[in-house]
Amino acid sequence: MTNARNHRINGDRLWDSLMEMAKIGPGIAGGNNRQTLTDFDAQGRALFQRWCEAEGLTMAVDKMGTMFMRREGTDPSLPPVCIGSHLDTQPTGGKYDGILGVLAGLEVVRSLNELGLKTRHPIEVINWTNEEGARFAPAMMASGVFAGMQSLEQAYATADRDGKTVESELKRIGWMGEEKVGDRPMKAFFELHIEQGPILETEGVDIGIVTHGQGLIWLEITLTGKESHTGTTPMPMRRNAGLGMARVTELVEQVALSHAPNAVGAIGHAEVYPCSRNIIPGRTVFTCDLRSPDLAILEDMEAKVIAGATEIAKTIGLEIETKRVGGFDPVTFDETCVGQLRAAAERLGYSHKNLVSGAGHDACWVNRVVPTAMVMCPCVDGLSHNEAEEIHPEWARAGTDVLFHAVLESAEVMS
Amino acid sequence: MTNARNHRINGDRLWDSLMEMAKIGPGIAGGNNRQTLTDFDAQGRALFQRWCEAEGLTMAVDKMGTMFMRREGTDPSLPPVCIGSHLDTQPTGGKYDGILGVLAGLEVVRSLNELGLKTRHPIEVINWTNEEGARFAPAMMASGVFAGMQSLEQAYATADRDGKTVESELKRIGWMGEEKVGDRPMKAFFELHIEQGPILETEGVDIGIVTHGQGLIWLEITLTGKESHTGTTPMPMRRNAGLGMARVTELVEQVALSHAPNAVGAIGHAEVYPCSRNIIPGRTVFTCDLRSPDLAILEDMEAKVIAGATEIAKTIGLEIETKRVGGFDPVTFDETCVGQLRAAAERLGYSHKNLVSGAGHDACWVNRVVPTAMVMCPCVDGLSHNEAEEIHPEWARAGTDVLFHAVLESAEVMS
Repeated sequence: MTNARNHRINGDRLWDSLMEMAKIGPGIAGGNNRQTLTDFDAQGRALFQRWCEAEGLTMAVDKMGTMFMRREGTDPSLPPVCIGSHLDTQPTGGKYDGILGVLAGLEVVRSLNELGLKTRHPIEVINWTNEEGARFAPAMMASGVFAGMQSLEQAYATADRDGKTVESELKRIGWMGEEKVGDRPMKAFFELHIEQGPILETEGVDIGIVTHGQGLIWLEITLTGKESHTGTTPMPMRRNAGLGMARVTELVEQVALSHAPNAVGAIGHAEVYPCSRNIIPGRTVFTCDLRSPDLAILEDMEAKVIAGATEIAKTIGLEIETKRVGGFDPVTFDETCVGQLRAAAERLGYSHKNLVSGAGHDACWVNRVVPTAMVMCPCVDGLSHNEAEEIHPEWARAGTDVLFHAVLESAEVMS
Repeated sequence: MTNARNHRINGDRLWDSLMEMAKIGPGIAGGNNRQTLTDFDAQGRALFQRWCEAEGLTMAVDKMGTMFMRREGTDPSLPPVCIGSHLDTQPTGGKYDGILGVLAGLEVVRSLNELGLKTRHPIEVINWTNEEGARFAPAMMASGVFAGMQSLEQAYATADRDGKTVESELKRIGWMGEEKVGDRPMKAFFELHIEQGPILETEGVDIGIVTHGQGLIWLEITLTGKESHTGTTPMPMRRNAGLGMARVTELVEQVALSHAPNAVGAIGHAEVYPCSRNIIPGRTVFTCDLRSPDLAILEDMEAKVIAGATEIAKTIGLEIETKRVGGFDPVTFDETCVGQLRAAAERLGYSHKNLVSGAGHDACWVNRVVPTAMVMCPCVDGLSHNEAEEIHPEWARAGTDVLFHAVLESAEVMS
């Protein structure tokens, strides 16, 4: 490592590639609409493949269409150190969510080539299929199949709004590979991602070292009261499902605050029926989004919300139904990989802090089967899943430098 | 009055007329869709006119299409005692809301004729145009013009969704009269209406004597926070417009309860943006419906909601806009007319209680220019503005009997 310590990736080249990729599947407001398994996705994949092959990488594609671009190590028998994320976007997505993690991997390889550096372990740059889940739910689909979270058959059968399936669309765009999903050995997996939250920018910190991923429970609650006229129904005779939802909203806030600072909770999806100015709501349907990096706390939060909401419903005279409609367990990233990222940030002189990832990422699934860690760079105003998503070139450069040095360490760069 | 004391209206005849009228503009679920100024409205008017003329009544129609069906008094120079309501319905309306008040007036006249009773004052049975306001807002349009609440020109210019105006539709269906709106002298106005609330049925009371009409304020509040990811935004950095709405919902409840038993308040209309499970609401728009029969209390309620909501918004970091989007002042009905209804219920041996009308009615506007009172009968489950709206024949009979006796008194039945 002695020689490599002063090396840096090329931030301008990285930025140029980001801008070049963003030309494929442009959005309507400066961002991108390059949804998974569309023609634009195929064009993005082809461009990435050309760039990789120009660097001498060899490609493998698995049955989920995930691309593994390999730079051979001095000992090809060793498992590769992997870097990656996803090239697909939301329908009104940004230019960096996912793309940065893939092209940063490419930039690591370009820098290694330019510097003439060899590593004992092979290095693979990965583009996971369908991370966004906007066209085909759930999100993180290919990395989920890779980690055994769902079967290939389930994923293949998933249809979009037009009834087209993942299987047929993979074939149509020509990216269904031969390799069995999940068979590929890996020494480690590193993912660089934009934070998609406001902490790093607000606190003026260069680098987020992701130690955990939030666990999530989506709890859908339906409260049924009685539609009645706002003018003619005395207060004691009301069964106001809107009041019930209001009280559960406050409950979720208090339950989350009771597990500060890492737990969070909110109700983002809320429907009020019949939603008329002079009719007391007879029914409300809403989803509590509960998150914590600690499984015991997460489950305690859910239990407290169910118990509290049941009590609220009883007091108002409402019927209540609760149903888990989604979620995943908390993630604790690999200590060694996390340590390598933190040491890299230290060595490079970047300010850094530990983060809990609030959103799901491919790394969260891959972590179940491969030692994994994530590094984050700030994004402007915490904005993501939005065409206005923005980062500064120096942020991308810093994150990729940290990734580069952690990979040099993990892949054992030859001095 | 001695002879008249034992007289009763004919409940079966009243019920038959209600059922006959309900055949015009049938709904899809047992109720009615006989919206104002439609062909069905014209058919309903024509049927009512035939029935009235068969009883010897003479018709006047004003420029708003309101029908005044007159039974002459022994002293034609005296102002008439009027009875009425409306024949138009909601798009998915019931068979009784409004119709009962008109056909009860007709039944009073039929009973007078059958019994050979004369009154000193003329009696007029009125069908007010467009009480419902579903097709052309606002509700209680013709009685509102009659009472000077809006101008004829404003009412005429009101268009439905297809751009058709009140003026053109009145002409099209052939019911634009010649009489200047509001010119007609009246001694008194009596309206029988179904309660549209649950009190009478729940308490097993036959008759509601309406002493007041609730005043109403519709206060639309817009809270603007910041859309952000539910997973990646720490609790202290959230500006959750949904939480703000929840707290205002509780505030409205508490403000209404602080003025028990007559004041009421609720939020029936509520919109949450973007309404996604994993996005903290960046904006909520909702309407507070505040009602009290006391103007000072009503205005105090509005002031408390605005002040409290402003404080709530400040605490959460939300912008707030408040705007009155509707309302009317409380109504105190005429003591003499109210007393005549109460005395009639007493005399007839019906249980009765004072009510505050929570909904708006033609009587609420007419009361501004003519001594007015309302009598109510129960309706099943408090249900109205719904095709399932239902009443029992004996309820309609009791209400019409009370109306009959109050009118005998007011119009000075000849002994």
